[in-house]
Amino acid sequence: MEFFVNTKRKQELANITNRVEEAVRKSSVENGICVVYVPHATAGIIVNENYDPSVCEDIVDAMEKLIPIRAGYRHDAIDSNAHAHIKASIIGPGKTIPIENGKLKLGTWQGIALAEFDGPRERTVIVKVIKG
Amino acid sequence: MEFFVNTKRKQELANITNRVEEAVRKSSVENGICVVYVPHATAGIIVNENYDPSVCEDIVDAMEKLIPIRAGYRHDAIDSNAHAHIKASIIGPGKTIPIENGKLKLGTWQGIALAEFDGPRERTVIVKVIKG
Amino acid sequence: MEFFVNTKRKQELANITNRVEEAVRKSSVENGICVVYVPHATAGIIVNENYDPSVCEDIVDAMEKLIPIRAGYRHDAIDSNAHAHIKASIIGPGKTIPIENGKLKLGTWQGIALAEFDGPRERTVIVKVIKG
Repeated sequence: MEFFVNTKRKQELANITNRVEEAVRKSSVENGICVVYVPHATAGIIVNENYDPSVCEDIVDAMEKLIPIRAGYRHDAIDSNAHAHIKASIIGPGKTIPIENGKLKLGTWQGIALAEFDGPRERTVIVKVIKG
Repeated sequence: MEFFVNTKRKQELANITNRVEEAVRKSSVENGICVVYVPHATAGIIVNENYDPSVCEDIVDAMEKLIPIRAGYRHDAIDSNAHAHIKASIIGPGKTIPIENGKLKLGTWQGIALAEFDGPRERTVIVKVIKG
Repeated sequence: MEFFVNTKRKQELANITNRVEEAVRKSSVENGICVVYVPHATAGIIVNENYDPSVCEDIVDAMEKLIPIRAGYRHDAIDSNAHAHIKASIIGPGKTIPIENGKLKLGTWQGIALAEFDGPRERTVIVKVIKG
């Protein structure tokens, strides 16, 4: 299962919880795991609080403070998005979430976000559900 | 399978290797993977050295240097733990470990830790074993 | 399935995409997931751009700027590689990639790298393929 997300800003966390939950429902898998994966090298998947949207902005700002858009990266001579590759490498392209009774075992405060560090872009999200 | 961990400090790595190994034994799965997952937004799972406990303290200190408890985060206006959400987003809520011959394929120096960045708290750890 | 990688430098990203793809082919699994895992506490697995090799050097440099080799870590009194344990904890020991039609669902710009932060070393990589 796949779906698309259009990000709007240069760096952004886009909430995809509902769409992943929908994919899990459609799979009809009662128990197992769900792998949420982005096949892109400037994006990643974050599982964290999505009740207060300011957490998403704090995460983007903190990542930007650690790995600024400009810092003399080698790759910027070719394609000026080295910072986004580094951020995406730290966040990781996917997360694996347990499924029980047909539902993701997300905590009360956990949501799933696509983190894009070189947007705006249209991105593919792959959801793979494994029985077990 | 689930178990609980009581952390004692504000920021801490708690060794959960034995309890995850026990869950794998109880599953009777000989070959597959084990997903260790925390359904909490200020905690994560780390697989790293647990022979010398000072490595755990070094990890906590390094994360704190990168993302200090106080740094003018937006979310702190609501709930003063933005730093913990950011740290947990970087560490990730879960790790996936191969199983062979009924045992986790941890390296000699690898252990599994719950990393809590906004404790002390009682935390749930979910262990999901998948045959394969 | 396992294979070995000899790293050549202190800190290095070694491209292992072809070897993981070969392991997936040998598994004959058409649909499922592939877990790529290093059982070592100073190394991790990164999925990111590997077309321009300078991205790998940018990632190593950025990690070194964030967590320098020397910074008064406790563990250095025992074994002077605390920085490598911290870097490996942030990157993570493994990544999980979807498989469809017998192939890894890597994006156009995604490759798989072993990140070693305390080399040069011979390292084992475990590839576990799960049907689903």
